[in-house]
Amino acid sequence: MACVEEPLEKHCWVCFATEREDRVAEWVSPCRCKGCTKWIHQACLQRWLDEKQKGNSGGAVSCPQCGTEYSIVFPKMGPLVYFLQQVDSALSRASPFAAAGVVVGTVYWSAVTYGAVTVMQVVGHKKGLDVMERADPLFLLMGLPTIPVMLVLGKMIRWEDYILRLWQRHSSKLQLLLPGIGRPLPRVPADWGHGGDHLSVSRTLCGALIFPSVASLVGRLIFSRIPSSLQRTVLGGIAFVVMKGVLKVYFKQQQYLIQANRHILNYPERERDGERSQGVEDDTEDSGND
Amino acid sequence: MACVEEPLEKHCWVCFATEREDRVAEWVSPCRCKGCTKWIHQACLQRWLDEKQKGNSGGAVSCPQCGTEYSIVFPKMGPLVYFLQQVDSALSRASPFAAAGVVVGTVYWSAVTYGAVTVMQVVGHKKGLDVMERADPLFLLMGLPTIPVMLVLGKMIRWEDYILRLWQRHSSKLQLLLPGIGRPLPRVPADWGHGGDHLSVSRTLCGALIFPSVASLVGRLIFSRIPSSLQRTVLGGIAFVVMKGVLKVYFKQQQYLIQANRHILNYPERERDGERSQGVEDDTEDSGND
Repeated sequence: MACVEEPLEKHCWVCFATEREDRVAEWVSPCRCKGCTKWIHQACLQRWLDEKQKGNSGGAVSCPQCGTEYSIVFPKMGPLVYFLQQVDSALSRASPFAAAGVVVGTVYWSAVTYGAVTVMQVVGHKKGLDVMERADPLFLLMGLPTIPVMLVLGKMIRWEDYILRLWQRHSSKLQLLLPGIGRPLPRVPADWGHGGDHLSVSRTLCGALIFPSVASLVGRLIFSRIPSSLQRTVLGGIAFVVMKGVLKVYFKQQQYLIQANRHILNYPERERDGERSQGVEDDTEDSGND
Repeated sequence: MACVEEPLEKHCWVCFATEREDRVAEWVSPCRCKGCTKWIHQACLQRWLDEKQKGNSGGAVSCPQCGTEYSIVFPKMGPLVYFLQQVDSALSRASPFAAAGVVVGTVYWSAVTYGAVTVMQVVGHKKGLDVMERADPLFLLMGLPTIPVMLVLGKMIRWEDYILRLWQRHSSKLQLLLPGIGRPLPRVPADWGHGGDHLSVSRTLCGALIFPSVASLVGRLIFSRIPSSLQRTVLGGIAFVVMKGVLKVYFKQQQYLIQANRHILNYPERERDGERSQGVEDDTEDSGND
């Protein structure tokens, strides 16, 4: 429908009605378009705009044919409406930051609480309360949340991997000194040099946060003769870290050896032959059934 | 390179070396393949497996040609290594749940704290502490976190929208009773019937959490003669909600009217004519400059 010349009668490019069909409807020619797309009913264009602007009633809309932006006028708003609109949009802009602040505050407050609980766990309930009551509140609000942060950072130091790498690098020398400690490996597994498994976020977090409880437990189990709760927990923590480190190095080294000594088997010749002679066997069975 | 017949000499389909080139290398025929892809060096297949299994050293790998799963044997692991492996995989499986528990605990603890602060804000600092110290601890641990939850749920009830809808539905009747309160609208904006804007999560959350502070502030400003902190804050909260509701209904109704009364203008005839006679004007200017 390419019409360059303006037709004798206006007709609406949305509802296709002409001037004669509805003599009271308001007409508008909102863009550079000429010919048969020059005229449109005001009401039809309003409906089309609602559709285009869905949910964003202030957005600019252009003619799909000539690209002219429609010129839309609104009744003037009063000062109160203008003020309310400014407040509304300011609140909308600020609310994501405020929500982020709520999240940060939640995490911070939990870190403070965790730090306080940890202090009481390590130095003993009563003594911990005494220490914190005597301390400067500002120091507590800054210092207590660093306790979980330090625990997580400490947990991220993978000293066992460092020892394992040292071990693997110098194991050939150890072999010369102590023959029989290790046979030469048939191969070096790929991707094994730099730490083996990757750091798991959830495991690091949980391990770090449970550590004071574990240290306190190990301390009470092994060093029950020590009266000071602080010393007992510190010694328990050190004992736990050393034990866990030794087991981890041992485990990783064994995993390394298992990977290094894996072997791929030949496909069993019998099955291969079985497949080849399948047809013959079937024939034999058939004749047996006869 | 389609060879169905087995060649006279083994050759490796990874490195293409033949038996003669390396007489000590170990050969393996790990799958159903025949012909020139039957044989491969054990070392070449190991390297290829490392590549395929990247990071997942226990995963099954199949021949890319015939699909046979390679049969890989590992040296037998000792009971300690087996135990450590079980512990390691159990920890890996449990850690996401434990991390989720940490997140839930963080949110819960912050909700408890927020509830306690709100109680102190509403009934007064000293009296709030007294009330909470006398209450059952279990009741506090269950009841305090419901305070922010109730605030958020209450904030999600959009009663202003309901009133606005009632208003818009009955405004025609009001017009009959009080002529002049509203002219008949030129159109009904689309998508305006069901509440206008959508619910913003961050705005709802922040609005709900700041509400007790606002209620307390408004109470102290307007009802400063009331001695009871609880009564003052409750009255302040009601006053704030009513004021805000009235402003919101007014603002939305004005926005509705603005949308209903928008008008799309004709494209200015002068510019349209200007474009058409651009060439002529340019000519005139040129002759003027001469």
